[in-house]
Amino acid sequence: MDGKLEIEDIDAAYCLRFLREVRDVAFATVDEEGLPAVRVIDVMMVEDGRLYFVAARGKAFYADIMRTRFTAIVGQSQDFRTCRLRGRVERPDDEAERHRLIDRIFELNPSMPELYPGDSRYVLEPFYLQDAQGEYFDLSGKPIVRVPFALGAQREAVEGFVITGRCQECGACADTCPERCIEEGSPYTIVQEHCLRCGLCRETCPYDAIERRR
Amino acid sequence: MDGKLEIEDIDAAYCLRFLREVRDVAFATVDEEGLPAVRVIDVMMVEDGRLYFVAARGKAFYADIMRTRFTAIVGQSQDFRTCRLRGRVERPDDEAERHRLIDRIFELNPSMPELYPGDSRYVLEPFYLQDAQGEYFDLSGKPIVRVPFALGAQREAVEGFVITGRCQECGACADTCPERCIEEGSPYTIVQEHCLRCGLCRETCPYDAIERRR
Repeated sequence: MDGKLEIEDIDAAYCLRFLREVRDVAFATVDEEGLPAVRVIDVMMVEDGRLYFVAARGKAFYADIMRTRFTAIVGQSQDFRTCRLRGRVERPDDEAERHRLIDRIFELNPSMPELYPGDSRYVLEPFYLQDAQGEYFDLSGKPIVRVPFALGAQREAVEGFVITGRCQECGACADTCPERCIEEGSPYTIVQEHCLRCGLCRETCPYDAIERRR
Repeated sequence: MDGKLEIEDIDAAYCLRFLREVRDVAFATVDEEGLPAVRVIDVMMVEDGRLYFVAARGKAFYADIMRTRFTAIVGQSQDFRTCRLRGRVERPDDEAERHRLIDRIFELNPSMPELYPGDSRYVLEPFYLQDAQGEYFDLSGKPIVRVPFALGAQREAVEGFVITGRCQECGACADTCPERCIEEGSPYTIVQEHCLRCGLCRETCPYDAIERRR
């Protein structure tokens, strides 16, 4: 993955490859008490638009995933680019298929047979993310860059802020924006791919013309 | 932080310093729908046993934190050591005190004034973790090492498995353990600091003598 990346090149396939390269990724779940939990998990394989990971049946992570079938993940490269992904988790119903997947994952990840020698590997269960909303994010440059994307049957998430027709073109939002990503016009517009989503424009607008996007 | 680290040296203060050095840490929250969310956030300051971070008022992260006052975080160093921390989030009530904290954080983190120039910094709100359960984790060696710790008024989390008095000393658990961290005895015992918590021993025990720790 070289440095000449164009925004147009960033899509779901790119972000799955990115997360596989980052490999050690934070996986968040909700526990039985409704509280967040997070741990670093390896992205084991990316194939056919699916991101695969494993969980040992004894772990709290496994219990959370089986109960909620949902996870949110984030991975960051050493040059501070980030991908987030959030969605439903699937597990093949058939045990033989799950063993086949574990074997394939162990072939692709040479450190795994050391950690789980012999048949102990089958205490691991394979899971994959398929339908998910994601975002690529690079805070290292000026302007920052963010690109939303969707995986499988999901649609892109819509977040941040939008300037409505109530805009009086006073320019207060553009002056206050720390990222300088609001452009003049009728109405003024936020350049979404550079927006920090800090919300300062909405707080500043004298005409209450700025709303959350939905 | 050098390589001659002894398990006895790993405590809450060590892990806070570790997370500050890692700096880019995954923060998980639960959103309005009860689903997990996670993003990379900077650890801005560690002081008086508190871990400080900031959130802009326009962000979903800010809304989650204000609503739940709870987060779970995980950070990993480039040599694959990990610290997790999970607990209550506090915010000073007094606005002047919050501004003072933001100013101090901006002094300590030179990239912040670039990202939020001038008074735009005050769209950020300062938060800290004080009472929390944590774990230090090093999966890079054999055996693996994990050390639980507590911060503030919390107690150490108790997780994993324990061999009860129903143990018949057959040795099946020790033979199956991928980490080889079960020692002979009456009963056999799991060396908790090296345990993967995969649960294979519990599945294997013919006498149902192994339980979750609580």
